[in-house]
Parts: sequence; C-alpha cells; structure tokens
Amino acid sequence: MSGAAVAIPRIREIVGERITQSMAVRQHHGVDTSWHPPHPPEAVIFAHSTEEVSRIVRICDETETPVIAYGAGSSVEGHVGALNGGICIDISEMNRIVAVHAEDMDVTVEPGVTRKQLNTYLRDTGLFFPIDPGADASIGGMAATRASGTNAVRYGTMRENVLALTVVLPNGDVIHTGGRARKSSAGYDLTRLFVGSAGTLGIFTEVTVRLHGIPEAVSSATCAFATVEGAVDTVIQTIQSGIPIARIEFLDDVQMDALNRYSKFNYPLLPTLFLEFHGTKAGVAEQAEMVQAIAGENGGENFAWATEAEERTRLWQARHDALWADLALRPGSQAFPTDVCVPISRLAECIRETRKDLSASSLIAPMVGHVGDGNFHVVMLVDRDRPEEIEEARRLNDRMVMRALAMGGTCTGETGVGIGKKKFIRAEHGAAVDTMWLIKRAIDPKNLMNPGKVLPE
Amino acid sequence: MSGAAVAIPRIREIVGERITQSMAVRQHHGVDTSWHPPHPPEAVIFAHSTEEVSRIVRICDETETPVIAYGAGSSVEGHVGALNGGICIDISEMNRIVAVHAEDMDVTVEPGVTRKQLNTYLRDTGLFFPIDPGADASIGGMAATRASGTNAVRYGTMRENVLALTVVLPNGDVIHTGGRARKSSAGYDLTRLFVGSAGTLGIFTEVTVRLHGIPEAVSSATCAFATVEGAVDTVIQTIQSGIPIARIEFLDDVQMDALNRYSKFNYPLLPTLFLEFHGTKAGVAEQAEMVQAIAGENGGENFAWATEAEERTRLWQARHDALWADLALRPGSQAFPTDVCVPISRLAECIRETRKDLSASSLIAPMVGHVGDGNFHVVMLVDRDRPEEIEEARRLNDRMVMRALAMGGTCTGETGVGIGKKKFIRAEHGAAVDTMWLIKRAIDPKNLMNPGKVLPE
Repeated sequence: MSGAAVAIPRIREIVGERITQSMAVRQHHGVDTSWHPPHPPEAVIFAHSTEEVSRIVRICDETETPVIAYGAGSSVEGHVGALNGGICIDISEMNRIVAVHAEDMDVTVEPGVTRKQLNTYLRDTGLFFPIDPGADASIGGMAATRASGTNAVRYGTMRENVLALTVVLPNGDVIHTGGRARKSSAGYDLTRLFVGSAGTLGIFTEVTVRLHGIPEAVSSATCAFATVEGAVDTVIQTIQSGIPIARIEFLDDVQMDALNRYSKFNYPLLPTLFLEFHGTKAGVAEQAEMVQAIAGENGGENFAWATEAEERTRLWQARHDALWADLALRPGSQAFPTDVCVPISRLAECIRETRKDLSASSLIAPMVGHVGDGNFHVVMLVDRDRPEEIEEARRLNDRMVMRALAMGGTCTGETGVGIGKKKFIRAEHGAAVDTMWLIKRAIDPKNLMNPGKVLPE
Repeated sequence: MSGAAVAIPRIREIVGERITQSMAVRQHHGVDTSWHPPHPPEAVIFAHSTEEVSRIVRICDETETPVIAYGAGSSVEGHVGALNGGICIDISEMNRIVAVHAEDMDVTVEPGVTRKQLNTYLRDTGLFFPIDPGADASIGGMAATRASGTNAVRYGTMRENVLALTVVLPNGDVIHTGGRARKSSAGYDLTRLFVGSAGTLGIFTEVTVRLHGIPEAVSSATCAFATVEGAVDTVIQTIQSGIPIARIEFLDDVQMDALNRYSKFNYPLLPTLFLEFHGTKAGVAEQAEMVQAIAGENGGENFAWATEAEERTRLWQARHDALWADLALRPGSQAFPTDVCVPISRLAECIRETRKDLSASSLIAPMVGHVGDGNFHVVMLVDRDRPEEIEEARRLNDRMVMRALAMGGTCTGETGVGIGKKKFIRAEHGAAVDTMWLIKRAIDPKNLMNPGKVLPE
C-alpha cells in the first residue's frame, strides 16, 4: 500500500470534498505549460489555510507520501510532475489579500493570489506589483520559481521583492521567515533560501512582497533594427549608461512574425526592441531621448511610440502572448521553452551563436528576451510524439546552455530548473550542489517535498 | 591539550611566520569597535590564498579547533571574540582586486579589500561600489555581516549587491556560489544564505559585487527641522513619493552637537537631515525641488547645499565620523552601539519613543540613522568598568529592540547579531530559528565556525 493510499482517507477527514482522485483533475495537475510528459499525482487537494496545509503535510510526513504544491500551472520545466507519486496540494483557492500596507509599500497575500488579481486589487492605492513573468502566475509559484520578467531590469526579481514568507516545513511545522523591515542583519536569510527552492524545502502559505509607486509618467515604444547586434548593443549601452529603463525586450524576426500573425500587428520582420520608460514626465522624456540617441548609433532609427494607455496595453499584451503566438506558428505543437542569462558583455555573442544554431535546425524557434538583464528565451516548437524532434530540441538546448555557462552565465535566468535543467546544475554550480543537498536533507530528510526536482541525483 | 595546541604547529608548516601567538596581536583580534569584552584567540594567522584558508580550516576540522575569520575589525556586536578559544584567520592581507568587469559592472575581490581601497581602484572606470557602512570595512566582512549604510536606500545592501562568493566550508572544501549573471533561477540561493551568516557557515575567500555608474550629477544638502517628527515625516513622504534619493540620513540634536564639536561645523542643534541626490543634472534638480517642497511642508525650510565635491566630502566624512564624534563627547568611554529597523510607517513613533527613553537616562546617547530604510542607530557611551552603566545600556537596548519587534521590525538593520543581539533572535524569528540551526548543523556539524555567534542556544 503506497503512502498516499494511507494518507488520502486521513486527509479527507480534514478537507472533505476538497480532495479528489478524478483522473481529469490529476492529469491537469501533473503537467505544466510545456512539452514535459505528464506525471499525475495520486490525489489533488484544494487547500484553504495554513493550518490545513500544515495538517496535510504532517500526514504526508508520517506516511512518507510525496507532496507537490501547485499554483497556476504556468511553469515550463516540468516543475509539478509527481515523479514519485504522492499528492498535490493546489493552493489556487488560497487567494485572499491578507494585508495591504500602503504606507510601507508592501502587501501580504495568500500564495494563490495571481499577479493580475493583485494589481487589480491595488488599483486605487497608487501602488503596483511589478514582477511580470508573462503568464498570470500565482505569487506563491512565482516565489517558488524565483520568477522575474519584463520589469526586472528596473524593479528586480522575486529575489529582491519577497520580504517575508510563511512556510509549512516538510514535517508540518509552520515558520515565518524575514519580516516587513526593508533590511535586516538578524540571522540567516531563510527567505531567499526558500525563494527559488521550487517546493523542495516547504510550501508557502503566505507571501509578503514589496510594492512600488505607479510612476507619474509611462511611455512605451518599439524600434526595429537591421541587425541583431544593433538591437543588443543598444541594450548593453543603455544599461551601461545607467538609464533606469523599466522594460527593454528583444524579439527576433521569427518572433515578430509570430506576433504579427497572432496579435494582428504589422511590424517589420526585423530584430526589434520593445521599451518602456517610467518616471516623472521630465525624467521619461530625458530617458527616451538618451535611448533614442543610443539606438540611432546602432541602426535603430524609427521609434514607434505608444503613449496612450490603451496602445501600451495592446503592445505588452502582444509581448506577453508570445508563447501562444509561437504555438500558433505550428498548430498542434508543444512548446519546448528554455532560457539562459549571461553577463551583458557576452549577450550579443550568445544570442548570435544561438540564432545561428537555431537557423540551421529544422525546428521553428523564435527568440525573445529580457535582455536588459542578459536573459533570453527560445521557444522550440515540437511534436511531443516525435522523438527525433525532442532529441533535436534537447541538442539545441544543451548547446545553448553550455554556451551560456562557458560565458559565465546561468542555465536558467527565470524559468527555473524543474526537471528540464537538472542535468546542468552540476556543470553550473560544481561542489556547491553538495551543499544544496546538505540543506535539502537537513530540512527534508525523507525527500518528500517535490522530489526529483532542482537537485541532480 | 586543546585542539588549537595540536593545530597550531601543523598550520605553522603551511604559513611559516604568518602565524603568531603574540598576546598583543591576539588581544587586538579578540575585540571589535565596541564595549564587548575581548576574547582573544589562541593564535592569529595572516592567510594569503583560498588554498591556504582551505588547508588551515581542514586542520581545524580534524583537530576540532574553532575558527574565526577577521577582516577590518570594524564590527560592533562582538562578532570576532573567540568565545570557545581556537584560532583567528585574518584575511586583511588577501586584498587583491581579482577582476574588474567594467562592461558588466561587477568586480571580484579578495575579502580583505576594503571599500575605500576598491573605490580608489575603480576611480578611472566611471563605476563605484556604493555600500558604505561608515567604517572602512573589508568587503568580506561586509558580506558576512550583510552590511549596508548611507547609500542603501537607493543601491541596496550587501544582500542585493553580492553576486557570487568563493567559500571555504567547515571541512575545508571550497565552493563557488552564485555567478556573474544578473539573475538566475538555477538551484538554491546559497549566496544569500552565506551573506549575513557572520562566519558561522564558512569563510569567504573571494567576493563578486555589483558596481554602479558614477552619476553624472551629485548634490548634497543638510536641512534642520524644529521637531524630530518633521524630519522623519519628510523622509517617509520622500520614500513614498518614489523619489530615487541616494542618501537621506537623520541626526538628532545630540548627534549634531557631537558632530559640530568633532568636525568643527556650526550647525544648529536641531534634528537634521543629510541628503544626497544622484542622477542626470535635470534629474537631480527635479528630485531636489520635490524634496525641498516636502521638507517645507514639515517645517524644514533652509536647505544648505554642498555642490562642490570638496564640501560634499567634508559633509559625509563628518557623518561617517559619527562614532568617533560620539566617543569624544565622553573621553575614555566605550561605545555601546545598537540599531533597529522598522517599517517606515512606524519610524517616527519608534524614534520618538526611543528618544524619550534615552533622554530620561543618565547615559549620553546620540541617535543617527539611515532612515530612508527605516533603520536607525543609537550610540550609548558607557564605561566598560562600571557595571551599572552596562546594565542601563542593556535595559535601554532591550526596550528599543522589543519596541521595534512589536512594530514589525528587526533587532538589527545592519550591524548584525554577533553576541549582542543573540538574545532577541528567538523573539524575532520564532520557530524559524530551529530551521537556521538545522542548516548550521548540516554545514558545520562540529560547530567550529565562529561558534557562539548569531544563533541562540
């Protein structure tokens, strides 16, 4: 009898109807937004409180049942698959805003609150939550993945924006990490240890994040370049000049084609930057002028401005729909998404060599990136049932990652390790992986929390 | 025979003359810049390389000898005392700049490089390292303490600015954490776990930190206020307005008196803000105008500007000399420094109540703070040999810390725990302290790395 078989009736006593073994629900919770094959859990529980999660996890500890937390299911590296069986705790119904501290510019939320839900809630406060991975991800999932996105170049990632966590540990104990003070030197930084741990050390049941003031002025633009180098050099010089740009996104010609088709735009099929400036009216005008001058020197002449809120929304919605636009290039395909991040001095070279590789392949593979951070994505369109395509995507991914590592970069800037990037962790971190394992074993000695993810065996 | 007695001759084989048991050197290394009683180590080693530190630590592991790392000795909470005996590894001679990557705006240094040394070295690059705790601390020590200082309100603390570490673990193994990419979701964030661990998990032998562009324009000012509230409310409103102020420091009337006497200024004896603006010329002018308007509404009328580099240097040097100015108020005294950090909405109340407490005491106790972060310091002047004064300072410190914790703050914003703040860690972090201990025991099972610090028994 598996641990789950013992645990499930005990959990049902706590949550009643909110545990299900329906195959459709299990299938849905065993797969993310990518090509990774599904691994359905043995049951799915829709938890409603920290106390419930604590009691459920305690039962799982006693019965040696693996536990996987599930938010919006928008991850892309196989983060949620139940590789060793066990149960899934879906936290999407834990979606209350617990406390807004507008004066302190922070908010505490339950982990199932999504970023759009939060920003809708905040609308009248003059504040916003900037982290924006494209998908309408849950804040808990974003903390677990150490997510970032288009605004990170200015506002940081979840690493910089999570202030405090409530965590259910693998034995069911509940701890509170961090606090609402802006800084602290009091003890080990558990908050940042848990951020990015992808459910392998505990389950978040409350997350406190920083908020930022909605800028007085916002202005967006697109600018096409004759060459990839021209676009990327513009990014590099902008960052090096210390211009506090809020967004600076790169889309290659393949991505622009996908976007034109899907979102009914008519952009030139050229490497393009999408930019956004935040600040005072004068500050935004000054930043825009400086970046236009830099772009001009790199062959980017024509800025198309979107100053009305509606135009800006349409522009960024199109950017956020990139994954769906890509999939529409080949109906019926699955996405094999990957991302790397390199020191910005190597970005042009890394993008150029990767584009060369992709162009020589039979796969359709648009490139898009948060290039202000040195981070870019490739979405390879594959048919999950054709092993030779998966093989080719793996080969291209391996080459892209090893190239980034050789340049002093990382195997994933923001999408996380899940199972897809596990094989690169040793190449990137060397013996530090053993230290990660020491911590994992100390906190989760039975290896029950999202087992098989992040750390290579 | 103590572990050290066995270890010392073996270490001498590695470092030759660079190990000493001279009482003067041991005394010097057993005490920091505060009232905490000295605890000299049994020997002091001046290490020169990662490999040497690794070999020394391995010997200490084998002989169960405690190991304490020592940088500039500028900490103030008893961080460096050899409570359980053992040896001290002084890393101040490991002071090479390893690699400047100007294009990527980062630098790798050995841990003994001080912040002033680094900024002198960087002078021609257009870049600077902003973290500035006042003292000319070592970068390794600053990383270990999670230091910050006057610029943190704009540029963050060591938490945000350390990108990567080389760490000698308690068994002598060497690991590399993090990397030079601006962001990563690849594995546990060991860098931020080690930052702030105060030598209790390992010894840093290389530190990679972010650099920032020297702003085109810099302008500093002071502004006196009739009341503490007026000054603090100006800070709060400035932060809440999203003005990217680079420095905003509060000094109370007692501190202004100390500063006038020590640095030969003639400021009014009133609560005063020291401010600095960084940006483009137009940006600085705009920021200054906005803050002047805010100050005006809070009773701060007269901005005294320091636009010349020389004037600015004199101004900030005086601010940095606060500790020495304080000590000069009572010749022969020792400093009992303490700091807390609270959510900014509680800052005025916290400062007001603390000032009331201090004014009712017989101790001289100036207040000064990095108030843009909600962080402030009190320096109580005590005679180490008068127990009733230590007792009174402890009482005031206890009240100040418990007040900050009750307001959702932290027992130390930046000076660290050492031994002085250990007793508050459980009150602040609750059961999370047990998780910290799990990590400590997993990484340092023999409890040899700076034992007795940070974590309460």
